[in-house]
Amino acid sequence: MIEIINTLQDFKNKRERLSGSIGLVPTMGNLHEGHLSLLKESLKENDQTILTIFVNPKQFLQGEDLDKYPRTFEQDIEKIKSCMHEDDHVIVFHPTNDHEIYGTSFNTTIKVESMNNVLCAKFRPGHFDGVTTVVYRIFSLCRPTISYFGQKDYQQYQIIKKMRDDLLLETKLKMMPITRDENGLALSSRNRYLDHDQREEAQILPQTLKEIESILKRGKVEDALSKAIEIKSKYSAWQYLEILDSKNLEPLSDTTKEVVIAGAFIVGSTRLIDNRLVLLNHAE
Amino acid sequence: MIEIINTLQDFKNKRERLSGSIGLVPTMGNLHEGHLSLLKESLKENDQTILTIFVNPKQFLQGEDLDKYPRTFEQDIEKIKSCMHEDDHVIVFHPTNDHEIYGTSFNTTIKVESMNNVLCAKFRPGHFDGVTTVVYRIFSLCRPTISYFGQKDYQQYQIIKKMRDDLLLETKLKMMPITRDENGLALSSRNRYLDHDQREEAQILPQTLKEIESILKRGKVEDALSKAIEIKSKYSAWQYLEILDSKNLEPLSDTTKEVVIAGAFIVGSTRLIDNRLVLLNHAE
Repeated sequence: MIEIINTLQDFKNKRERLSGSIGLVPTMGNLHEGHLSLLKESLKENDQTILTIFVNPKQFLQGEDLDKYPRTFEQDIEKIKSCMHEDDHVIVFHPTNDHEIYGTSFNTTIKVESMNNVLCAKFRPGHFDGVTTVVYRIFSLCRPTISYFGQKDYQQYQIIKKMRDDLLLETKLKMMPITRDENGLALSSRNRYLDHDQREEAQILPQTLKEIESILKRGKVEDALSKAIEIKSKYSAWQYLEILDSKNLEPLSDTTKEVVIAGAFIVGSTRLIDNRLVLLNHAE
Repeated sequence: MIEIINTLQDFKNKRERLSGSIGLVPTMGNLHEGHLSLLKESLKENDQTILTIFVNPKQFLQGEDLDKYPRTFEQDIEKIKSCMHEDDHVIVFHPTNDHEIYGTSFNTTIKVESMNNVLCAKFRPGHFDGVTTVVYRIFSLCRPTISYFGQKDYQQYQIIKKMRDDLLLETKLKMMPITRDENGLALSSRNRYLDHDQREEAQILPQTLKEIESILKRGKVEDALSKAIEIKSKYSAWQYLEILDSKNLEPLSDTTKEVVIAGAFIVGSTRLIDNRLVLLNHAE
């Protein structure tokens, strides 16, 4: 069964009547296989799944692609249905305007201070505050047992986890692996902005991360760090290319067990991000 | 019965075992009759009361009186006991350090954006963000049925109410009237900084608010507004003296039903605040 709800009040009423475990998949719509992997996991693990579709203005900066961000509701519903089995129960919360998620006079910001001046945060100041604020609001409305996020937005996941811990929120969190196309490009709603040549160029991003991963896997941390600096400096399309401690997004230290190799890469006017997680082999 | 708890873990364990209605009285200690009026109301209305005593560093600005803020725990406990009847149950949560309320790596800020650039906020930038952040944390830990605050901190109350609404927090809120000494001075822990002459001078604050109130009560809104401007301009001790819509702390408009007359007044190095609420008599 799939139910579509468009208003805050209807959603609140619906939520009151739900019992059992609730999986939450918060999205901005334009669903692709990455989103669907979260949905499938939630369907497998929970009595019901709430999938939210809301293009959240608070997380777009002035000049970003809020207006042209793809809205494809009809196709999204078809894709959701294609993942469902007979007994599955999905509630799609698709607020028709900002008030149907925030209420009429919402004016509060939730800001995680840590991990909020590196990687994407450096280039999109305020972006993650918009994310944490809307995710807080969605968590409060949905009161999920467990919420699913994609690894592609790794920094987002870590910041949301910090918010969850600091604000004593009750949901469990689960991060699902990146879904890639046949060329290794991480799936993203923004990939549709790319033309044929740009899609080719975009492969530099996953290929580079993989190259650095293989240096790291050979235990050559210093080599990987200097390789990243070298690659980034050679090509202005790189907004960042960094190797950080995956736990706190700080530079590597003696206590680092796992690293994240994270890159942001501009193709035309499209900004792409990707990352890989690598366990350090301290034995070597 | 009174129970004193000093650590986060003990408090969490305690809270898990509580049932029935819970009244919350969050304080920074150094209790006076104002605090005790909140406590008494809570005892009357709830199965148990949690009173927190925590001098919250986040709400003090650089250069403010965090270090010298009076800590009088023993006397506080005696005063609490003096309000209690045989069947009352009070849990005093008195974290011995910041970690026992925030946990060890807390790094999130909750900022209510509205009402946060007028009155005290103008002169204490960031103060209310410290307040909302700690009050959020205390609400989350205590999960109260109802929380009690004093009218003396009227702006604080309104900002906390906005946070409660925006963040969909479950506690009810109740504001209790200002408690005053025999000369009309609003009780405050900071009054103890005043010497004899300063206490005399401090009376200008409540007397002025009362004077403006009486002009308003005669229906002379314009007169009250110009009187406030005149008084403030004559004496540099006034940090602010304003008449605002009590609902949103904005300038009066045609829809204003009730106003708050609010003043901040500096005596020596002590900053005092006070306010009065006045219903406008539109019939006149």
